[in-house]
Amino acid sequence: MPSLSINPPARLLMGPGPINADPRVLRAMAAQLVGQYDPAMTGYMTETQQLYRTVFGTSNEHTLLVDGTARAGIEAALVSLIEPGDRVLVPIFGRFGHLLREIAERAGAEVHVREVEWGQVFTPAAIEQAIRETRPKLLAIVHGDTSTTMMQPLDELGEICARHDVLFYTDVTASLGGNTVETDAWGLDAVTAGLQKCLAGPSGSAPSTFSPRAAAVINARRSIEAGLREPGDPVSQNPIRSNYFDLSMLFDYWGPKRLNHHTEATTMLYGARECARLLVDEGLPQAVDRHRRHGAAMLAGVEALGLDVFGDLRHKMNNVVAVVIPDGVNGDSVRGALLNDFGIEIGTSFGPLRGLVWRIGTMGYNARQDTVLTTLAALEAVLRRAGASVVAGSGVGAAYDFYADTDSADDARQETP
Amino acid sequence: MPSLSINPPARLLMGPGPINADPRVLRAMAAQLVGQYDPAMTGYMTETQQLYRTVFGTSNEHTLLVDGTARAGIEAALVSLIEPGDRVLVPIFGRFGHLLREIAERAGAEVHVREVEWGQVFTPAAIEQAIRETRPKLLAIVHGDTSTTMMQPLDELGEICARHDVLFYTDVTASLGGNTVETDAWGLDAVTAGLQKCLAGPSGSAPSTFSPRAAAVINARRSIEAGLREPGDPVSQNPIRSNYFDLSMLFDYWGPKRLNHHTEATTMLYGARECARLLVDEGLPQAVDRHRRHGAAMLAGVEALGLDVFGDLRHKMNNVVAVVIPDGVNGDSVRGALLNDFGIEIGTSFGPLRGLVWRIGTMGYNARQDTVLTTLAALEAVLRRAGASVVAGSGVGAAYDFYADTDSADDARQETP
Repeated sequence: MPSLSINPPARLLMGPGPINADPRVLRAMAAQLVGQYDPAMTGYMTETQQLYRTVFGTSNEHTLLVDGTARAGIEAALVSLIEPGDRVLVPIFGRFGHLLREIAERAGAEVHVREVEWGQVFTPAAIEQAIRETRPKLLAIVHGDTSTTMMQPLDELGEICARHDVLFYTDVTASLGGNTVETDAWGLDAVTAGLQKCLAGPSGSAPSTFSPRAAAVINARRSIEAGLREPGDPVSQNPIRSNYFDLSMLFDYWGPKRLNHHTEATTMLYGARECARLLVDEGLPQAVDRHRRHGAAMLAGVEALGLDVFGDLRHKMNNVVAVVIPDGVNGDSVRGALLNDFGIEIGTSFGPLRGLVWRIGTMGYNARQDTVLTTLAALEAVLRRAGASVVAGSGVGAAYDFYADTDSADDARQETP
Repeated sequence: MPSLSINPPARLLMGPGPINADPRVLRAMAAQLVGQYDPAMTGYMTETQQLYRTVFGTSNEHTLLVDGTARAGIEAALVSLIEPGDRVLVPIFGRFGHLLREIAERAGAEVHVREVEWGQVFTPAAIEQAIRETRPKLLAIVHGDTSTTMMQPLDELGEICARHDVLFYTDVTASLGGNTVETDAWGLDAVTAGLQKCLAGPSGSAPSTFSPRAAAVINARRSIEAGLREPGDPVSQNPIRSNYFDLSMLFDYWGPKRLNHHTEATTMLYGARECARLLVDEGLPQAVDRHRRHGAAMLAGVEALGLDVFGDLRHKMNNVVAVVIPDGVNGDSVRGALLNDFGIEIGTSFGPLRGLVWRIGTMGYNARQDTVLTTLAALEAVLRRAGASVVAGSGVGAAYDFYADTDSADDARQETP
């Protein structure tokens, strides 16, 4: 078997991500390589930075890719911003809040957490109260947490952080491209993402952006690595604990100095650039509208099937819904039948929600009418076969009605995906 | 410009890496994604592990990909093996030895270095003497260092390390696939690599392997991360300082537990799997022979052009040669003319060799007769135009003669690349 060429089965990935990559992204990634300092390569790097400034809603100079998965971007931000002993506040409303805590602890921070029940988010007042109590250097909070489908409102937190002189970091892996993210308008200092959700690419590159204030904190610990260092180059007494994730070196690599660090992952860069290019061509507000529309259609469909939806819907991300598994139905059997009989993948869940909900995504390339209708039709068929009392045709019908009743602003894109 | 689709210029990459990817690798990477726990995906992960066991010459269970560039593999190995305060011995014979020192220092090690002049390597006796003097927990040494083109013989070091109870780590990024690497026979405990040299892929994935002894050291610090942890799961009092590079968690993700960590970079995995599949299909000894042959042809060609070669040729890697820039010739101008007029990239150099040598590679997909002859013809033309006294036709002629005089064991591959 190992000697066979790659030939993955056809899957429609309607879970919480990864989802199917846009074929245009995969085609861009099939382009041949150029050298690390070829003018074409440095030109692509510069273009990629400019494209992600638009995607993140920022004018930050320090906008770049971290070569790794979304989690690599989180760790690069936290290990570069945190010095051992620094206080960090992590409000947790799902699994990925726990991850921020974990990474901050390993970076040596004194971490203070606040938690709300899964399915809820924090009020700005609660965050400010926690800041008063803990006096952190850094607030680290997830924007959209796929584990609960909730999205934390961030628009009022930047002003609070600025007032208390707190750095403000967020992970937008799950939200970016399908929900509004305004780095500069919201006063964010550090934002990291991944490609495998609404950006319609494969996991493996972490677009990230850092405000001048964050960059100043990071560059204060700048150290040119042994092997490249020349007389007079800075050697920090308190260097960032990681070489690979040392953002001060990544800034030099992505900046006009082009100082060698790692060998940029060219194929992932081609993909990340194409993900951003497609979003910018579509328009960020239009992409958010598309995710809102197809997410609402999916929600209408599952509710019409008589299924309950988990969490505070006022704060649900556009691109994913958590559906309560009906009594008497085996959640894993339903997922297995969808995968094996229809080629459709939906998501399971973690922690307190394990075994209680399915997570169904409508994101990136798969935020489309055909994927929504097909998934609802398949889900209904599988549920009925599993013995659930579901009215035939109800889910697809409700989604069809939803589409008919709403305008078709995004039809052009749907017709020529 | 940013709105244009990717369209890199045609380049023949004959530097020290990255080189052109094998088109079959790029085609594999264009395959559509499947879900993270799809049986097809976990099957590809298992196949990839098995393929890299063959490539590394090991039966190590813990053979996997680190999702990042070659440098990510190095950091994952060092940060997972080293506890703060551990003594680490780093013999340095080029730039990447300095990198190992740098990464080990950031991981909190007490690092002891030994250095030889660039262009040389260490004797086993010198390494053993340094081990006696420094009593390290870990010996960390580069196998092939592209900065000098030298390859450190490792075959006698495993026995020395075992005798002194020292863990033995090496970075084979530059050597693997084009030079013999025998993980088990040489007694290596940890080995990391990258795709962008003799493996004929793009940078962005780091194949790595760990002996049972290394795995035991790493797993002694195992900690299940917050958010996934269940009652009874281990929580280390001395966890690995990085979450992303915590190999104990990567072992769980790649092992039968399949415990969620990052979202595997599927496209890079497809590429890494194809790189290994092509090497295994060719045969590792055959691939090494191919690199030896084309490296020797390139060496014969540059010497026939009257150019001096840097370093102790008894220890030169098969896949790269350092050519002394002749007096009166501007090295960067020659590289520029090769790139702009012929579309051929050769390498510059670092540190003590900066401005003194060019580095010319013959590796991976570009270890072929046509690339060698074309590069020599172009180099001669550019050198003559730059005023160097070069006998017309001498370099290509010598390489042609070399090919005619040696057997053609690898013609089959050349004809159907």
